[in-house]
Amino acid sequence: MSEFHSKIRTIQWTDNCSRMVDQTLFPYEYKYVDIKSGDEMFAAIRNMIVRGAPAIGIAGAHGIVLYAIEIAKQISNRDEFISTLLEKADYMKTSRPTAVNLMWAVEKQKEIIKNSSSGISGIVEELKQNGIKLENEDIEINKKIGDYGAEVVPKGATILTHCNAGALATVGYGTALGVVRSAYAKDNTIQVFADETRPRQQGARITTLELTMDGIPTTLITDGMCSYFMKKGMIDMVVVGADRIASNGDAANKIGTYTVAIAAKYHNIPFYVAAPLSTIDTNIETGDEIVIEERSREEVTHINGKIICAPEVNIINPGFDVTPHELIAGIITEKGILRPDYKDSIKALGI
Amino acid sequence: MSEFHSKIRTIQWTDNCSRMVDQTLFPYEYKYVDIKSGDEMFAAIRNMIVRGAPAIGIAGAHGIVLYAIEIAKQISNRDEFISTLLEKADYMKTSRPTAVNLMWAVEKQKEIIKNSSSGISGIVEELKQNGIKLENEDIEINKKIGDYGAEVVPKGATILTHCNAGALATVGYGTALGVVRSAYAKDNTIQVFADETRPRQQGARITTLELTMDGIPTTLITDGMCSYFMKKGMIDMVVVGADRIASNGDAANKIGTYTVAIAAKYHNIPFYVAAPLSTIDTNIETGDEIVIEERSREEVTHINGKIICAPEVNIINPGFDVTPHELIAGIITEKGILRPDYKDSIKALGI
Repeated sequence: MSEFHSKIRTIQWTDNCSRMVDQTLFPYEYKYVDIKSGDEMFAAIRNMIVRGAPAIGIAGAHGIVLYAIEIAKQISNRDEFISTLLEKADYMKTSRPTAVNLMWAVEKQKEIIKNSSSGISGIVEELKQNGIKLENEDIEINKKIGDYGAEVVPKGATILTHCNAGALATVGYGTALGVVRSAYAKDNTIQVFADETRPRQQGARITTLELTMDGIPTTLITDGMCSYFMKKGMIDMVVVGADRIASNGDAANKIGTYTVAIAAKYHNIPFYVAAPLSTIDTNIETGDEIVIEERSREEVTHINGKIICAPEVNIINPGFDVTPHELIAGIITEKGILRPDYKDSIKALGI
Repeated sequence: MSEFHSKIRTIQWTDNCSRMVDQTLFPYEYKYVDIKSGDEMFAAIRNMIVRGAPAIGIAGAHGIVLYAIEIAKQISNRDEFISTLLEKADYMKTSRPTAVNLMWAVEKQKEIIKNSSSGISGIVEELKQNGIKLENEDIEINKKIGDYGAEVVPKGATILTHCNAGALATVGYGTALGVVRSAYAKDNTIQVFADETRPRQQGARITTLELTMDGIPTTLITDGMCSYFMKKGMIDMVVVGADRIASNGDAANKIGTYTVAIAAKYHNIPFYVAAPLSTIDTNIETGDEIVIEERSREEVTHINGKIICAPEVNIINPGFDVTPHELIAGIITEKGILRPDYKDSIKALGI
């Protein structure tokens, strides 16, 4: 497998602290900060210095290591160490209460705390190693997604993406943008069109930043423009991420994704979802069961702190939409590309 | 016919000057300015204090009246007055060289200058009366469009629109928003969803302003959201304006319109274009012949003067797109609603 060497590493355990890109500075700066204590990590997650579900999960895991190091300096009784650390672990979960990956990663660390037979310094070391393992696994999964996805990218293709399912939403490499990176490693004539992705503009602020940093040719377009370029034959495929996938293949992703999927169908352009298997929720039959979060009116009415509309206008701001399975050509996972009928191909995974 | 009484009057000849809304202040202020000389009008058009094709046309016609008043004070020889004024008329056209309505309205005034048999003060008066006549005709056409359109608006409908084809793009009342106003006059349970319309955000800045000023319930959404609300059954019809319509009914309008039209088709929601007959260009067979203006990269990369993306990203910024006739349920004009086959219904107009 060819592999793309990205400049982007969103989060990494380094020099006994958690080094992460400060995502609040995008697109103005790409700067690392070292998070050196559990409370600093709590604030970093809450204030969105780190964002993107997989990246937040690893941040939480690192946060538990940082708390463990601090508590080990203050408490020498093993039982007391464990009970204090478990309390801090539960506290860490409240930094972004809706982030499922955060809960998952903190629970992974709690299992180590509860099940370890080591002394205090041994537990600290085990937590550290587990944090690093979770980091590496995240990147490995993305690289597998990337490599499977690259197989369906035509030579010289222009790939349209929406929002940011990139290295900067994960530990590194990315899901949808992992496909882009693996494809670019094989064929450097491919290029990307990135939807701005209003209201929060993740496509403009984050996707253009990470792709241009990695030297991948990228064109920013506004969300309404996709059909114009599709009709001109300038888009060969669409690849997006997903926040949750139902048993029938319906996929929730950032608001606006569904509109792109309809436009792709109208122009007979294949529309792919790239996501790890952990995104598939076999507890739900269809996308109708996915509750869509409504977000604040200010995300729509204000940009960079300035109002852009009549102040008294009504706002409805759904954060996500659901693309129905019939618009999806394939779901690119670390175990290969799932194809319709998704009910069958998802069931066959045995997850 | 019921008629809606709008608070919006974009431009009006008043107290021997041209009173217009300063559109550079949107959405922060709604303020009138009095344009008192030809050169002030030239600057007002160039600096987009007035925008929207029909409104610019009337501004140009008023500008010729203002020049005529000034020149009449300085020159008493009739031939010299006429030749000086004709020069100023041609100069006025260069204030926005691509605005077809500006050329058309200035030519209307030039015909009066050339063909009048009156003395200087008589010519000035004829130009003034013609300016007022063009103003009133613009509003009358829009009210007819509004009334025809209102007939196809279902009771309690939610109407989605894109960009601003409103009172503030015309002398008053509007084309697409003229349909909204006439429908609201008959049934005050209708409401509007307004697309933001990136990159220039005319939907957010202008449409929400003029509709909330007129008390019509309005919800602002980002451009990618339309399909989400369509799927939920929250949109009953789409009405947009047009910049140019080909003989087969293909309609050019603000970028993003075509994406909305595709989404409407996918959800079986009727998509209407509202435009005066003067928008129909029988010199072109199809929309493929319409050259799309490419606009500056800053419109995409910057909002309110601040960059929103990686500075080195590539930009393509088409100002318009073409919605193919097969996506259009009807073209609402001042002579009634044209229906497919548009080749036939347009030919039957005899224009």
